[in-house]
Amino acid sequence: MGSLKSDVEHENTSMINPMDSEELRRQGHMIIDFIADYYKNVEKYPVLSQVEPGYLRKRLPESAPNNPEPIETILQDVQEHVVPGITHWQSPNYFAYFPSSGSIAGFLGEMLSTGFNVVGFNWISSPAATELENIVMDWLGEMLKLPKSFLFSGNGGGVILGTTCEAILCTLAAARDQILNKIGRENISKLVVYGSDQTHSALQKAAQIAGIHPKNFRAIKTTKSSSFALTPDSLQAAISSDIEAGLIPLFLCATVGTTSITAVDPLEPLCNAAKRYGIWVHVDAAYAGSACICPEFRHFIDGIEGADSLSFNAHKWFFTNLDCCCMWMKNPTALTNSLSTNSESYEFLRNKASDSKQVVDYKDWQITLSRRFRALKLWLVLRSYGVANLRNYLRSHVNMAKQFEQLVAGDNRFEVVVPRNFAMVCFRK
Amino acid sequence: MGSLKSDVEHENTSMINPMDSEELRRQGHMIIDFIADYYKNVEKYPVLSQVEPGYLRKRLPESAPNNPEPIETILQDVQEHVVPGITHWQSPNYFAYFPSSGSIAGFLGEMLSTGFNVVGFNWISSPAATELENIVMDWLGEMLKLPKSFLFSGNGGGVILGTTCEAILCTLAAARDQILNKIGRENISKLVVYGSDQTHSALQKAAQIAGIHPKNFRAIKTTKSSSFALTPDSLQAAISSDIEAGLIPLFLCATVGTTSITAVDPLEPLCNAAKRYGIWVHVDAAYAGSACICPEFRHFIDGIEGADSLSFNAHKWFFTNLDCCCMWMKNPTALTNSLSTNSESYEFLRNKASDSKQVVDYKDWQITLSRRFRALKLWLVLRSYGVANLRNYLRSHVNMAKQFEQLVAGDNRFEVVVPRNFAMVCFRK
Repeated sequence: MGSLKSDVEHENTSMINPMDSEELRRQGHMIIDFIADYYKNVEKYPVLSQVEPGYLRKRLPESAPNNPEPIETILQDVQEHVVPGITHWQSPNYFAYFPSSGSIAGFLGEMLSTGFNVVGFNWISSPAATELENIVMDWLGEMLKLPKSFLFSGNGGGVILGTTCEAILCTLAAARDQILNKIGRENISKLVVYGSDQTHSALQKAAQIAGIHPKNFRAIKTTKSSSFALTPDSLQAAISSDIEAGLIPLFLCATVGTTSITAVDPLEPLCNAAKRYGIWVHVDAAYAGSACICPEFRHFIDGIEGADSLSFNAHKWFFTNLDCCCMWMKNPTALTNSLSTNSESYEFLRNKASDSKQVVDYKDWQITLSRRFRALKLWLVLRSYGVANLRNYLRSHVNMAKQFEQLVAGDNRFEVVVPRNFAMVCFRK
Repeated sequence: MGSLKSDVEHENTSMINPMDSEELRRQGHMIIDFIADYYKNVEKYPVLSQVEPGYLRKRLPESAPNNPEPIETILQDVQEHVVPGITHWQSPNYFAYFPSSGSIAGFLGEMLSTGFNVVGFNWISSPAATELENIVMDWLGEMLKLPKSFLFSGNGGGVILGTTCEAILCTLAAARDQILNKIGRENISKLVVYGSDQTHSALQKAAQIAGIHPKNFRAIKTTKSSSFALTPDSLQAAISSDIEAGLIPLFLCATVGTTSITAVDPLEPLCNAAKRYGIWVHVDAAYAGSACICPEFRHFIDGIEGADSLSFNAHKWFFTNLDCCCMWMKNPTALTNSLSTNSESYEFLRNKASDSKQVVDYKDWQITLSRRFRALKLWLVLRSYGVANLRNYLRSHVNMAKQFEQLVAGDNRFEVVVPRNFAMVCFRK
């Protein structure tokens, strides 16, 4: 960052160079030790933060400081005031929600990305950011044995978003505009979105944001008899009733590994039912998609060839620090038609590479323009651990759950509520 | 991360502990040195990457490796294959787009956040993440001398999102639902969104995603006579013409520091005009908002008290590594009404603290559920540099631009196209 001598004294402060490489080195090493110590001790903390609402405002000053404070003081405050307010997702004793399973490689990859600090919204703004993302998404797609139609090599393609909410919103917008461009925008209030009563809240939220009429959001009831999976019959019934009412079926979110009980919606028959009505099928495998890199678990996404898009969160159960949602789709053009802005009007977005259509401009695959270089951390995870190890980690988690399930099932104080699919066991007293 | 002995040998691989604190320490120190060296040398690289489309696929393997690779090999590949494909946003010679001005403090804050790797979607999932965000957003709001109605202490509030695109989409959805709940959802196709022909593409994109009819997006023409600012008269004319056509004015995005020439839309008269029609006014100060912490530049957001929401990107010109978009609004309830999902249906989102309504659950202030602990990096920036220094940095950038503008103006080979407002000079041959 440049500076001119004449600017130095405006208020009575010391000019610090916020990009000084030796100061970054000194402070960076301190933070590494801080985090390594945190990991060493994380098991000792109560997993759930014990603070009361409003605790932090009582401990921190009312305004930002006028003068610089040394990193030593700040780190002391992190330890004394922030750490007690953290719910320790990285603790081995953490069993809430889905995991947020970071790793050394994921952490290092995020560091590199933060250090380069590029804004890779189109190819030219940092070609490596786009091209590495293309490559790792194809790698991962192959690990999942996705049909070639979901890969760049087969005219589909993958993108790294932040979260599943974004994946669903983007594909929902694509589906919506594809149909409205045929039948007229004024029909937006007739479009219907389908999921089950086990589908993640992300679907409802995406539908709200995309302007779907709240009355046209279907959370189809599931029952224990189908292990809380969405059945093709109940989907068909809902569709028929909507069509009879003059509505237009638009979008189905099928889930592989639901949030509450990791139920698996049967993709093949659901996709078949949906296809008859031109419904876009998105598969949300946020948690369980990871496991499908193991041949013995791949069957959970059997039928994926009938879907339009698929997403899973590498930040859940794939050792990649938050955030990293991997999404593939067969027809990226539907997505970019919906999400691109006419770059004729925005001169700053124009460049030779984009005009040549030889490159991917990821800004048109997502909600936002700016984007972080997330592919680095996924690349580091894949390389640092290797496919065989990654499979073994996932297996070992499933095996632990299997053993736990057996212990619970053998104890007459408890009941296993639904059969276990992955590394989560649903039980009750 | 736990493991059971019985799982160790499934394929012929070495089990590595992806959370081993000493290994994190060893590898983390290596990465710090790598990044410090990168910063030391960044000036030597050509700013714009010199690679050709498709360069990276030629250099990397076709599939992910089966076995682990050492960090040393990976870092060598980062240097040899990734760095040449980077457009060096952190180079002092970088002058494209808006800056992506990281800093040591911003980098360290992101490291801490990545290390803790919490998913702070609601208060209970990591109270410190929510409360620190409440606090720094109030600190920063005070630094900008925002009216109390935009701060938590005045029943407004602030949130850290990823980018301005998200800020605009969230507020647009809030505005849309507020009006549709009164006049009926079927009127969505009548809603009109206003900006100028200088407004960032983020507005058009947000309107597309939110289901606004593409015909109802107004990019009102600006001219050199108003230094390319949106004039209240032209806004009024557009509104009148839309009302006459039976349409319903919904949303205005006014910009302080437009993308192409850093024009400043006059907030006070625009807000007055908008208020007559119940239009939601969002102020996009993505780049220039930072400067408004200096008393001598605060006048650029005069009139903000008439707006509904304001956002600026701390990742642009405020030393906070990507991504960090700060948004304040007067009526968070309008936002949460639009973006929250009925938590009765989603048991995993329910907890005592949320039910008590004593806490902020930021999941309802944004598009996604999951969110990173971004407040840490902003807190580190504010504390490491202090308000006085931050003001001086911004001043020094403006002063450099001022000197450059004088040099250009005094050279008859060049013409300064519009008067400079901030640290950007628009000139041509």
